[in-house]
Amino acid sequence: MHSHHEIAIRVRYHETDAQGHVHHAIYFHYFELGRTELLRVAGYDYADLERNGVFLVVTEVACRYYQPCRFGDTLRLVIETTAIRGARMRHIYHLYRDEILLAKGESTIGCVDAHGKVRRLPETLANLEATQ
Amino acid sequence: MHSHHEIAIRVRYHETDAQGHVHHAIYFHYFELGRTELLRVAGYDYADLERNGVFLVVTEVACRYYQPCRFGDTLRLVIETTAIRGARMRHIYHLYRDEILLAKGESTIGCVDAHGKVRRLPETLANLEATQ
Amino acid sequence: MHSHHEIAIRVRYHETDAQGHVHHAIYFHYFELGRTELLRVAGYDYADLERNGVFLVVTEVACRYYQPCRFGDTLRLVIETTAIRGARMRHIYHLYRDEILLAKGESTIGCVDAHGKVRRLPETLANLEATQ
Amino acid sequence: MHSHHEIAIRVRYHETDAQGHVHHAIYFHYFELGRTELLRVAGYDYADLERNGVFLVVTEVACRYYQPCRFGDTLRLVIETTAIRGARMRHIYHLYRDEILLAKGESTIGCVDAHGKVRRLPETLANLEATQ
Repeated sequence: MHSHHEIAIRVRYHETDAQGHVHHAIYFHYFELGRTELLRVAGYDYADLERNGVFLVVTEVACRYYQPCRFGDTLRLVIETTAIRGARMRHIYHLYRDEILLAKGESTIGCVDAHGKVRRLPETLANLEATQ
Repeated sequence: MHSHHEIAIRVRYHETDAQGHVHHAIYFHYFELGRTELLRVAGYDYADLERNGVFLVVTEVACRYYQPCRFGDTLRLVIETTAIRGARMRHIYHLYRDEILLAKGESTIGCVDAHGKVRRLPETLANLEATQ
Repeated sequence: MHSHHEIAIRVRYHETDAQGHVHHAIYFHYFELGRTELLRVAGYDYADLERNGVFLVVTEVACRYYQPCRFGDTLRLVIETTAIRGARMRHIYHLYRDEILLAKGESTIGCVDAHGKVRRLPETLANLEATQ
Repeated sequence: MHSHHEIAIRVRYHETDAQGHVHHAIYFHYFELGRTELLRVAGYDYADLERNGVFLVVTEVACRYYQPCRFGDTLRLVIETTAIRGARMRHIYHLYRDEILLAKGESTIGCVDAHGKVRRLPETLANLEATQ
């Protein structure tokens, strides 16, 4: 019922830290990348949205880390849209290396205009869930 | 009863993104900085801990964003240790600009040895709460 | 005579800064990505090299910026190995969006062992130039 | 004759990479921090400059790395303005841990307006060299 998307992510060297693993803050870069790609497959270019005065801002994130990952790993990020309503979208993320679940995340995104004022999601985006 | 610490953080230019605000993943850098400084005021140098085979790894984080911040802002991060037990520590974070609450975060940190195996926190660290 | 490689790079949102452009330090992430991919097409996995005690460290970099790039851009990075000798490799980089040259970089990489001591490049790597 | 400034920089954990050292791209964050602080001691707030339509953009950077640095290190960055002319400023950087020179960098900064068009440096900034 909900929209899903999966992307492959190759760990970049600078994303690691002195423990030899990908730094925990980097996972939020991966999740953001997932959202960008999810929009893209749905026919949206986020850069265009911003040029049209639609800004998506992160209002809440969380992540649980189960297993570390390192440079050389190719990861698989599965992103799922769990809610789209009014000015908000919620996503959950599962990050895998092969079949091993490395981390599980979630985020809430709000929609604002160029002045930072909350606005409803564009109608086509709000209907994304049903059209995928 | 719990240990508190407060640090000042000046936003660095590269921490901002094209929306003109500090990118949401950067807040986890600030929280990490808070943990480092909290350890330091308690007499611990995290670099020394690692040299002695004590590695602290992040197992869970979350953040709610209320107001954006930008380059030029000086922020005030208040970190509080809410639990220290066995191999785990929990912290909560409040990030302010003047008296405005910008974000609220939390994290769970686990303790592992040089091989990534869970180990108890060093006793002195485990007693940190009471000694501050 | 020299080895070349070209990769496509999509700008990620967090790589931009408040001026709306990719931050100048990020270009060195792109160049590093280019080196990793150049090794990969030559049959080397840099993660394996490190596991075998071969560490490549950057000893010198430079970049000239001609035109900015932004989120939404797909870039084309052309990397060329200009010298491999003893413990050193030199590369030059040209970064394009379509046919527009955005930046031109160069780097020198040295080879060290696990203790940070300078060592010759593995013979197969040192012969890379001729074998491509 | 030229303006100098020195700042202390504590290495942050996320700035390190899997080799255990500060990643080479991070040095450009430190240099940028140096420029911000150099402006500040001269009475300029870069955030204000941007609000007044003065944007400083990096047009050229370079760095030589002599010794690595790691988490736990406190560094000393010495920044020197070597030229201010028309729309350009040049700086050189020396990064030390105690008396050990770790890296030496240089940069050229151009001045543009809000539309990215080259403009002369504000007169007070252009006179910075003489007034310090």
